[in-house]
Amino acid sequence: MIGIFDSGIGGLTVVKEFLRCLPDHRIIYFGDTARLPYGTKSPKFIENCSRQIVRFLLSKGARAIVIACHTASALAADTLKREFKNVPIFEIITPGIKKAARITRNKKIGVIGTPGTIKSRVHERGLLKIGPDLKIYTKACPLFVPLVEEGWIHKKETKSIIKNYLETMKDKKIDSLVLACTHYPLLKDEIAAVLGKKVSIVNPAYDLSLEFKEKLKGDRKFSSLFKKGKKHQFFVSDNPYNFQIMSSLSLGIKINPKVVNLA
Amino acid sequence: MIGIFDSGIGGLTVVKEFLRCLPDHRIIYFGDTARLPYGTKSPKFIENCSRQIVRFLLSKGARAIVIACHTASALAADTLKREFKNVPIFEIITPGIKKAARITRNKKIGVIGTPGTIKSRVHERGLLKIGPDLKIYTKACPLFVPLVEEGWIHKKETKSIIKNYLETMKDKKIDSLVLACTHYPLLKDEIAAVLGKKVSIVNPAYDLSLEFKEKLKGDRKFSSLFKKGKKHQFFVSDNPYNFQIMSSLSLGIKINPKVVNLA
Repeated sequence: MIGIFDSGIGGLTVVKEFLRCLPDHRIIYFGDTARLPYGTKSPKFIENCSRQIVRFLLSKGARAIVIACHTASALAADTLKREFKNVPIFEIITPGIKKAARITRNKKIGVIGTPGTIKSRVHERGLLKIGPDLKIYTKACPLFVPLVEEGWIHKKETKSIIKNYLETMKDKKIDSLVLACTHYPLLKDEIAAVLGKKVSIVNPAYDLSLEFKEKLKGDRKFSSLFKKGKKHQFFVSDNPYNFQIMSSLSLGIKINPKVVNLA
Repeated sequence: MIGIFDSGIGGLTVVKEFLRCLPDHRIIYFGDTARLPYGTKSPKFIENCSRQIVRFLLSKGARAIVIACHTASALAADTLKREFKNVPIFEIITPGIKKAARITRNKKIGVIGTPGTIKSRVHERGLLKIGPDLKIYTKACPLFVPLVEEGWIHKKETKSIIKNYLETMKDKKIDSLVLACTHYPLLKDEIAAVLGKKVSIVNPAYDLSLEFKEKLKGDRKFSSLFKKGKKHQFFVSDNPYNFQIMSSLSLGIKINPKVVNLA
């Protein structure tokens, strides 16, 4: 099984990309809904939570770990890779910024995320390491998560708020935009409509699932870890009222996750 | 000093009412911004946090404690009153529901708050205890907090979202509405514009400050606890990017709070 975890329920959009890219693989998901949001917590706290979750997922049969959460990817991936040496661990930041740096033509890249992610500047720093001549424009869009969790994807208010947030990006003539929050892919069409056809929108979950698939193809030892199947499992640390909205939006089905207390 | 605490920065609207009602009193504020939101956490967790905060406020010279947070009022007030027997402790839920039950004419009362508060049904149960014949209509409005924290008070999107959330309340012909979240008083005028003049809007912080003032007037022993002054203090457990927006909106001044780690 592929273990995927997130601070909450946004990671279901990552599950969606994995199911699309690897339809024969089983997923086990953990959303740390009792302790979200991670964006405002200390690195040590995030490390502790991530460690507990990885242990839980491994105990349930996960053979590789995908960190769907941008904050945990930034703050805990290195520690997890060091502590769980024999477990393949994937994070969501690198595939997205690599893709953006590869596809941009005018070297102007936008990054949008939660205030915590944007303030951390992790995507900005990563992009400038790949391409020191890149111009990076970032914007925190704190209303996007609650809009998505309300299921307000197609409402006129949402369109208007997207316009408002992305006005400057449009003025700066970015040609690619990284969705650096797991909720944002659910607004992808609406964001694309505001930015116009010339702007490519990067959903890092898509590129992460491709990276995983490539590794399955190219690494026999890695691919031998997984048994194929269709039975997925979903766990949360607290049952949020909007899990069903999010699972409907992301996966097209209502899921009743099991609640487990890790703390 | 009057110690006021909240899970975050919404409690600044409670500070506002206290400063208005008791302009000669000193306030010491603590916002638990590192551990917010409380709404989704376990009662034991909220109790622990609240206990730590009360100890901190007392150590800094607070002589009475005001729980500005609706969740902590619901889950921790009784424990705190029991554990800190000699400290006068006030909570924010009772003054608001008493007021609503007193002023309603048609017995139809609305309550709006965060999903956590609404799900807890604490206001509903409290109101039905006071008036078993009351009809209570509740609605979680999860977009209001992020809208306020973005400073989007007067935007057309905000008006539109308020209309959307409160449509049913209007149809049900409530005649009073309790703002059961500390952020919501900042949207009071906009909410009033949507509901019309016939609906009274109850800001529990206002009634709580009156209750405090009454006690100061009527209880010499209580009033002797406080030295008057104008120097207020603001503490948070993590510095959120929007503290200044919220302090500007609530108090008309930008405040740089001190960060202290209680955990």
